Amino acid sequence: MEKTLITISRQYGSDGTKVAQALADKLDVWYYNRDVLHMAAEKIGVDDLDEKSLEELNYRKSSRYVEGLSVMMGTPGHIPVYNQMFKEQSKIIRKLAGYGSGVFLGRCADYVLKDMENVYTIYLYADDEFRLKHLSEAEGREFTKSELKKEDKTRESYYNYYTGQKWGDVQNYDLAVNMTKLSPEDCADLILEYIEKRRKEK
Amino acid sequence: MEKTLITISRQYGSDGTKVAQALADKLDVWYYNRDVLHMAAEKIGVDDLDEKSLEELNYRKSSRYVEGLSVMMGTPGHIPVYNQMFKEQSKIIRKLAGYGSGVFLGRCADYVLKDMENVYTIYLYADDEFRLKHLSEAEGREFTKSELKKEDKTRESYYNYYTGQKWGDVQNYDLAVNMTKLSPEDCADLILEYIEKRRKEK
Repeated sequence: MEKTLITISRQYGSDGTKVAQALADKLDVWYYNRDVLHMAAEKIGVDDLDEKSLEELNYRKSSRYVEGLSVMMGTPGHIPVYNQMFKEQSKIIRKLAGYGSGVFLGRCADYVLKDMENVYTIYLYADDEFRLKHLSEAEGREFTKSELKKEDKTRESYYNYYTGQKWGDVQNYDLAVNMTKLSPEDCADLILEYIEKRRKEK
Repeated sequence: MEKTLITISRQYGSDGTKVAQALADKLDVWYYNRDVLHMAAEKIGVDDLDEKSLEELNYRKSSRYVEGLSVMMGTPGHIPVYNQMFKEQSKIIRKLAGYGSGVFLGRCADYVLKDMENVYTIYLYADDEFRLKHLSEAEGREFTKSELKKEDKTRESYYNYYTGQKWGDVQNYDLAVNMTKLSPEDCADLILEYIEKRRKEK
């Protein structure tokens, strides 16, 4: 098989994780998810954090307060830890993509890999109602609309900050699928059919 | 075949017309395009306009000046002609959809038909570079970026005004395909595969 790099960007609660896993299984290639975050943390020596703190550290830049504080306290040339994280993450993603085929979930991989060959960028999304139902089931409690909007905002802010692009803008992607009416399995198959067509047209 | 209603919303210059035609051919169903506009014009008695004037009349509402003027001069209960056009268009689209399967190109059909059964809403788009190349070839002259932006603005304004939704927002659609790297023929096939999966899941 020709090398295949698939990036999956997904709206929070759209069940995109299952699509990414199914794709990696079907193609029998590597699947890269938040582990990239752990690798980056290890690289910069902050790997002693628990899961929650690590996630918080990663998204921290989206707080203007912390950003301002960091700028004030930073010496010239100093890179705040959250920027170091993103930088290391990007290096790791590009390195992994160099090794061979893989499916990359989140982590702005669509942007990080955009100049490489054989990259297919996918955006998965869903209606709010679907996402709330899915998240409530996953967490075993009622997930509220305001929590959803807050999570959306965090991801949007993170993506926009690091890529200079607009989160959810379909122009950044090759294909966008609404998960509201399609199973993850069928969505993965559709993406494979899309890739096959692209290959054939080359 | 179960009744199938496909709406194709496309970014200007994305070659979406060919996809809509290919879909109608492959499914052997009716294809509805700007003719709906002519039918609406006839209905309200403005069918003596040439193609360009008709198109202008249709999009006129996007001018704040004309809109303001119309409000100023309108008597209570008076509906400006461009609103009448949209109203008639919508009625015609719903009527046609009632008859049987069909592919609907543009005319906010995604919004007009959204509460009907068996509707599949597709958004087609492409990179600016692709669109400029395609439009320049079609018109036999260099199509400029500022002309493209102006056309985008007109369509956006029209769609947003009548639907209350945001033009190009992928949340309004079931599937969105970037035409930059896919032929209209293959895109039509992908949409058919998508519809098949949706049917199977029902």
